[in-house]
This record gives sequence, structure tokens and C-alpha cells, in this order.
Amino acid sequence: MRKFNFCAGPAALPQPVLEQAQRELLDWRGLGCSVMEVSHRSPEFVAVAERAEQDLRDLLRVPSNYKVLFLQGGATGQFSAVPWNLFGVGSKKADFIHTGHWAAKAIKETRRYGEAQIVASSEDRNFSYAPAADSWKPSRDAAYLHYTSNETIGGVEFDYVPEVDCPLVVDMSSTILSQPIAVEKFGVIYAGAQKNIGPSGIAVALVREDLLDRAMDNIPRSLSWKVAADAGSMDNTPPTFAWYLSGLVFQWLKTQGGVEAMEKQADIKSKMLYGFLDSSSFFSSPVEKGSRSRMNVPFVLADADLDKKFLEESEAAGLLSLKGHRSVGGMRASLYNAVPLEAVEALVVFMADFEARWG
Amino acid sequence: MRKFNFCAGPAALPQPVLEQAQRELLDWRGLGCSVMEVSHRSPEFVAVAERAEQDLRDLLRVPSNYKVLFLQGGATGQFSAVPWNLFGVGSKKADFIHTGHWAAKAIKETRRYGEAQIVASSEDRNFSYAPAADSWKPSRDAAYLHYTSNETIGGVEFDYVPEVDCPLVVDMSSTILSQPIAVEKFGVIYAGAQKNIGPSGIAVALVREDLLDRAMDNIPRSLSWKVAADAGSMDNTPPTFAWYLSGLVFQWLKTQGGVEAMEKQADIKSKMLYGFLDSSSFFSSPVEKGSRSRMNVPFVLADADLDKKFLEESEAAGLLSLKGHRSVGGMRASLYNAVPLEAVEALVVFMADFEARWG
Repeated sequence: MRKFNFCAGPAALPQPVLEQAQRELLDWRGLGCSVMEVSHRSPEFVAVAERAEQDLRDLLRVPSNYKVLFLQGGATGQFSAVPWNLFGVGSKKADFIHTGHWAAKAIKETRRYGEAQIVASSEDRNFSYAPAADSWKPSRDAAYLHYTSNETIGGVEFDYVPEVDCPLVVDMSSTILSQPIAVEKFGVIYAGAQKNIGPSGIAVALVREDLLDRAMDNIPRSLSWKVAADAGSMDNTPPTFAWYLSGLVFQWLKTQGGVEAMEKQADIKSKMLYGFLDSSSFFSSPVEKGSRSRMNVPFVLADADLDKKFLEESEAAGLLSLKGHRSVGGMRASLYNAVPLEAVEALVVFMADFEARWG
Repeated sequence: MRKFNFCAGPAALPQPVLEQAQRELLDWRGLGCSVMEVSHRSPEFVAVAERAEQDLRDLLRVPSNYKVLFLQGGATGQFSAVPWNLFGVGSKKADFIHTGHWAAKAIKETRRYGEAQIVASSEDRNFSYAPAADSWKPSRDAAYLHYTSNETIGGVEFDYVPEVDCPLVVDMSSTILSQPIAVEKFGVIYAGAQKNIGPSGIAVALVREDLLDRAMDNIPRSLSWKVAADAGSMDNTPPTFAWYLSGLVFQWLKTQGGVEAMEKQADIKSKMLYGFLDSSSFFSSPVEKGSRSRMNVPFVLADADLDKKFLEESEAAGLLSLKGHRSVGGMRASLYNAVPLEAVEALVVFMADFEARWG
């Protein structure tokens, strides 16, 4: 029996997607083999790859001057790829908005190849908010500005897109496909798949074409966006099964009404949970209002000694993976596209009951 | 209905492995979710990862002073990783045995970071053989010697392990797990998974521990063996489903008698096909005897105008993916571990019939 899964990633996948994958796992489209067992250059797989790209373009209304890349190495691989691909022409300095765990990792890797100037930070209040648009200014000579539109661990989400003159680069791992985005405002959007796209092991990057020629000379081939773009993301054998599954997720999203419908769902689901947290005297959100993520909702118990009991009981109640990230502790419920409203309802009912018994 | 699949990669997987994955795709171990939907740091997945590593160690008798790494980016990613990880201390020069398509790619990427000296090559006879052990000498100042133990496209396999004083690095993508290997003779063994290990999207590297501290200073984090080794191959989210499936393949291999049994099977299967090719006046092997791969068997028709008909008829007969690589043309039958003897029998029967009708 399927349970409600709040894992931050690898996260819940839409059940119809898994069911289709299961049905055709041994014999895909009557070919007599699995989709995992066909050449990535076969007409059948190329059709899968092309449809996945087109569906993603449709869902996010990606302008034609952007390449859509399917990559390996996750968002962490892109922490390396971004400076390697953008520091080769002109400035070797990047602006960063520092919002916590994932921003810090991107900053650290960037500093190995150039300067990372922190133009805004929420460190002063323990990364519990996103710096307001009018509270900071970009520098004048940055090759790009990088920010993390949603901190998966901290549960902090930007409610605006930064306005800068340089190319805007965003790690959108945990919010991509959960809301419409104005792609044209960005130079590069990248995301690991294992939240709202598909299984782990594949990442997506949308790169504006004029940024493909700025790589440092000795960029490893496997990190080069230009190499990937020129080869249709098949410079070497891609993770075919992950690509196929991501494509099924895109098709599912279309049947659900696309990212506009996902945003409505995200609003409803997250408001239900935050509303409960704010009304509770036992549970609380550590994130400031206005910056609260609709995808990742960290929360704490008034008595941390009850954390273990909460996790045992929630798991027994069929509510999976509510433990917070090991770096911060507490709890976290991730409410990605594949997490249904019923899951959040069940979570709130459980939490209210837990509070009544232990609060 | 499952057909016989001779694809060079992504290649056939063992049917029992796919059946198990299918059974538990929506509800893994009664957890109420897919193995794709659990955290890579959950006790359940960590157990999968650790068992996969141990089974691989058992199968290949990996000495304890070697790290077993599960990586992203395929063997092509390792073409970058090898020089980045080994050129940081002392010599920035590597020896290469040049045997064709894949060796050339490794050489090309290495030359971006240092010297690649070709100490032996089979280019003189169109890469149709592996240079004999007594026909070449390593240089004196190489950081390592790299070779490709089996050229997947050319169908050329070494029948010996080079003896050198420097660390020996091998791309073993298409023969790993098809035969016992003396791991202790190597500094680094790497392989993309999509031939004999599992689905595409994961690669394996066995790295002798003393080679973990030779990386160039600015190595991208995502390419660093040391980072991967220190993090148990979980510096970032690994491709969990591919890792899980690889683990199932390792378990299947153990039930089949391990790599010793696989080598016997490979001998029988390849001899059956080469025997037929050598007895045919219509089909022939372009590879010299003594260097013929047991995993990848390229062959040509006496009349290339019949190639299209051969492919149409073989596919109709349930024999999949016999087309040779686009760079060389002709045909190729890959006989990896998951390709049963019956597949090769059916192929030979078909070819004999085709020859009788068209030869």
C-alpha cells in the first residue's frame, strides 16, 4: 500500500507515472525489451528525449533562444559547472545572495575559480528569510548573479525574481515546475530532478544561448553546457531511464493543468500546513512570514524530547520522511507536486492529535 | 514478449532483475513507496548501497586498500576525472595505448590537461587488434598508463594486462564483471554501468587509496575521487535507482556463479559466433584473431547493400540492435552477461539462414 511521502528528495513521484513505468518495465512499447535496454540513439529513445524536452518547454514556456539540457551530476555538479561555463570571458567575479545551506555550497565551489561576492545575506537571522528586493544592490562588475530561489533545508523561498543587469543564475531545484516562471528574466536556470522532475541522477539546465561561449578554456568536457547543447545532451550515454521517467512526469503535469495548477495546489497545501503551525502552541515554523517555502516546510516541536516519538508515530500513521535535515534537526514536510492534498490533510490531522495527546 | 537484445549499451539487463524491480516499483519492501522515493541517507537505502558495494567487492575480489566509488557522468566523465585526479603531484604526462574510438576520446580529453604520449597503437591496421605485450615499452616519467581493455565499437579486447611501473588505469566499461580480474595490478579501474553493471547513469571506479591524494588543486568537486571516497559516494544525491538496480545485478551474478561462470559463458557464446563467422563465406569479422572481444562482436556482410535487409529481417526475427556503431557501420552483436546462450544460438541460426538465402 502506498503511503504519504514527505521526503525532501529523492521525493515522491506521481503514482500514475510509476504505474506506467511498472507496466512497461520489461516490454516497452512492444519492442521486446525495457526502455532501459535500448540505445539512447535509437529512434524510439530519441523520440522520448525530444518529447520530454518539448513538454518541458511547453510547461515552462521556454523561449526559443534557450537550450534545454539534461545533465548528470545533479545541482551540485552545476555548482562547479556555473563558474566553469561563465568565468571564461571578462570578469571572474560573481554576485551571490546567501540564504543558507545550498547557497553556501554554491559559493564555496565558485570561490575555487574566482570571486564570490555576497551582495545580500540572511545569515544575521539564521537564514530564516529571503533578503528583500530593496535591501541590497548588485555589484557592478559581476559575470553573473547567483541565488537559490528556494532553500530546501531552510524552507525559505524568494517571493520575487532579482532584477540585475548581469546574467541571472538560479538554483531552482526544489521549486521548478511548481509555479510559472518568467524564464526570459534568467540567464541560467538549473535544477536537480529528484524533487519535482523525476528520479535522482538527472538534472536540467535552461541556458540562454548567448551564454554558451563564455567557458574557461580548460573546462572539463563533462561540465560544458556548450558540449551538451551541441550534442543534444547526448555527448555520452545519458541516464536514459531517468530521462524517460522525467518525460512521464512532464506528461502527467500537462494532464493536471500544468504549472499554473501546480501553483494553486502548492498554495492550498502550504497554507493548510502553515495555518495549522501558526495556530498551534506546540508546533511552530522557524521561517519568517513572507519567505516561507511552499515546497519545503520545516517545523519544530516545543519539546524536542518528543521528536523521536513524533517520528515513530507519524511513520506508523503512514506519513513518511518527516525528519528534518541532519544539519538543522527538527521536522520538515516537503509538499512537491506529487504530494496530494490528502497527504497534507492527513498530516495536519495527525499533528493536531499528537499535540492534543502530548502538547 | 521479451526479445533477444544485442545492444552495445544501454544493454540487456537480466530478466530476473527487471522482474524484481517491476514487482516492487511502487511499494519497496513494504515501505509504502518506491525505492526511487526514499532518501539516499535513509537506513533502507544506505543498506542497499552498502550491500551493492560489498557484492561488487566479493565478485571482483577487490583488495581492502581500494575504494569502490559509484559515480555519475559515465566513463566519459572519467576521461576528465582521470587527469584531474592524477596530474596534481609530479608528472603531468600519461602513457596511452591507442586502440581506437574510446582510447582516442580519453587521449583527447587528457591532452587538455597535460601530455598524452602514445606508447603503443594499432592505428596502422585500422585498430583491428590490441598491440602485443612485447611490441611496446612504457615511457619513464608517466604519471600513469591508460588503456581501454575492450573497445566496444572496434570489438578489440586485450588478452593481457600491461606490466608497468607507474599506476595502471583502465577503462573497463564493456568487460567488467565478464571475467575475473587481478585488481591489485591496477591503480584505477573505471566503467560505465550500461553494459555489464546496470542501467545508464551510473559509473563505477575502483581506486587504490594511495592515488586519492594526487588531484590538481582546482579539480571540480564533482570529479574528485577523494570527495566521493570520503562521502561514501554520497557527496550529493546519487542516482539511487541505478545504484539499486546495479545491486540487483550483482546479486544475480552471485546466483549465476560469479565472474568465473560469466567468463565460461562468454567463451562459449563468443566462440559460437566467431566460429560461424570464420566458417562463413558471406559474413566476416574485421578483428584479428587473438584480439577478438568476447563482449562485442562486430561483423560485416560481403555485400553491404544487404545491410538494410539484414537489419530488417533480424529485427523481425526478434534479434534486436545488431546495427554497428554509426562511426564504423556494419553489424555488431554485444554478448554481455545478460545475453543468454539461446540468444547467440538464435542469432547464428538466423545468420546461416540469411546467408543461404542471400549469400
